[in-house]
Amino acid sequence: MTGTLLEILNLLGKQAHAIDGGAARQWAETFTPDGVFRSPTYPEPVRGREALTEFAAAFAANNPRAHHVVTNVCIDREISADECHVKANLLIVRTTSSGAVAIDRVTTIDDSFVRHGGLWRIAERVVTRD
Amino acid sequence: MTGTLLEILNLLGKQAHAIDGGAARQWAETFTPDGVFRSPTYPEPVRGREALTEFAAAFAANNPRAHHVVTNVCIDREISADECHVKANLLIVRTTSSGAVAIDRVTTIDDSFVRHGGLWRIAERVVTRD
Amino acid sequence: MTGTLLEILNLLGKQAHAIDGGAARQWAETFTPDGVFRSPTYPEPVRGREALTEFAAAFAANNPRAHHVVTNVCIDREISADECHVKANLLIVRTTSSGAVAIDRVTTIDDSFVRHGGLWRIAERVVTRD
Repeated sequence: MTGTLLEILNLLGKQAHAIDGGAARQWAETFTPDGVFRSPTYPEPVRGREALTEFAAAFAANNPRAHHVVTNVCIDREISADECHVKANLLIVRTTSSGAVAIDRVTTIDDSFVRHGGLWRIAERVVTRD
Repeated sequence: MTGTLLEILNLLGKQAHAIDGGAARQWAETFTPDGVFRSPTYPEPVRGREALTEFAAAFAANNPRAHHVVTNVCIDREISADECHVKANLLIVRTTSSGAVAIDRVTTIDDSFVRHGGLWRIAERVVTRD
Repeated sequence: MTGTLLEILNLLGKQAHAIDGGAARQWAETFTPDGVFRSPTYPEPVRGREALTEFAAAFAANNPRAHHVVTNVCIDREISADECHVKANLLIVRTTSSGAVAIDRVTTIDDSFVRHGGLWRIAERVVTRD
């Protein structure tokens, strides 16, 4: 578990900074090439790195002062040496034009991680909201 | 320190999902069989897995859209190979009926961890509030 | 990466508890002896452990119910065995006199870490705000 959890913690931290900072391609690369992102906030699943890159670029363009805050990260199922399931919460925090900070929403993420090219990558993320 | 901190990070993540998701017994099992939970929010300490399970079930039943957000986790005292002390902050975040998200309270947790059956478990949690 | 990220996670957790709990010298010791703290919230950089200790003591005295919440921690550049760069977000959360909890601000921290006396310490922290 040791190395896996650390790699995943680091990846999820980088992922948050990537989408919030507009590094859309870097965000997409935290997924496998055919990775899927499913969220009730958006009408359709996003599939594959091209679409994921566009998705992240649109998020950053439309949410200039938003932050993804990743928390409660745990490996809740170790499936094999190359596959595990990770659960976490992701809060969207936003600085408004008045300078006040609000939590827009609390989501739960269910990530299916696989080894891809020697690195842990997200094969599928399922987001749920309260 | 390495493996211990990782195990504990994973446990605390799972623990948050367990209580928020109503997995009361799983929450209780993050404590030792005679583990104790002390919090100024509640009139009496909760002692032992049966009582801890009831406590967690009641929390989930009464707080349908609450999330425990664990943060600032650190081992602040390594006592022996089988005993350490962990400090963290635990925020209770809640989605209200209007959809707005509020932080109900910020707490500090002081956890006495021990090895039990080869796994790190909480022997005593002391919660303090601002 | 493994041991380094864990040490740094533990250090950043301790650091948050130190400044919020008024352990000013302990906070300063998370920096190298000539470490620098730069933040747009304050007029001048803070340099060296004496000044850092005074800075942390003043923060704690003026912010009795504030919490530094460290999140999204990742090593975004591994420079050498003795040097790396860490990115994270730091939220300042405050319990107000009415008991309500507010997020005062969301910051991003860019930390230059170096090995000092066998331990990871912050040589320079650069804080940015939205």
